Amino acid sequence: MEKIVTSHLDDCEWQQSEKHGKLRWKYLVDSTHFLSHGLSCGILNVPPGGELGLHHHSPQEIYLIRSGEGMLLLYEVETQKLKKDSIVYIPKNHPHGLRNTGSEPLEVMWIFPTDCWEEIQYIFES
Amino acid sequence: MEKIVTSHLDDCEWQQSEKHGKLRWKYLVDSTHFLSHGLSCGILNVPPGGELGLHHHSPQEIYLIRSGEGMLLLYEVETQKLKKDSIVYIPKNHPHGLRNTGSEPLEVMWIFPTDCWEEIQYIFES
Repeated sequence: MEKIVTSHLDDCEWQQSEKHGKLRWKYLVDSTHFLSHGLSCGILNVPPGGELGLHHHSPQEIYLIRSGEGMLLLYEVETQKLKKDSIVYIPKNHPHGLRNTGSEPLEVMWIFPTDCWEEIQYIFES
Repeated sequence: MEKIVTSHLDDCEWQQSEKHGKLRWKYLVDSTHFLSHGLSCGILNVPPGGELGLHHHSPQEIYLIRSGEGMLLLYEVETQKLKKDSIVYIPKNHPHGLRNTGSEPLEVMWIFPTDCWEEIQYIFES
């Protein structure tokens, strides 16, 4: 049975994988870490010069920029500047990406209406 | 048709109502403000000494503490301390509340898997 769970960003471990290069992330609310469903979120850290390439996925998503400076990559339209406290709503299947254009890490909170991040199928635009 | 929407916290207006006393809030992603669905979020500002009383609602919710110090109010169990970057997962229908125990505003991001905040039916524990 699900319970109220309180945690802290500092207590969540950074994740990394070869597939995702220098990107790092933390799972904050995610059913792979404790019993939860229907909402998940985490923190993505994009190092200076790094990017999460243009991609889309079935669920809608929200980005909240926590720190750093970057660009929201978009398909066939102008990119948009992002800074601390920028918010982005991304509808289902809309191509988007992130590029760090600053000298500090770009830290972004992602939010999905899913149980966990693992179930998101990322389809990168080639 | 839904589009990608980028906004900034500073451009969202504080909301207030007599019913909610000194609490103030901003809608960040909410279908009452632009076309979106299935995810909504906003910022709640609880002034020093203020609280959002113990209540429950049907959808699950996530809190992310942005600044200040407070307590998570819980039903028949101990309260829990909250500070910047605390995260709380609240399952469906679980009673919870917030109290500012510090000298600065307690600023909390709420996240729902709903189109908008308006559709949440708050049931306060008396």
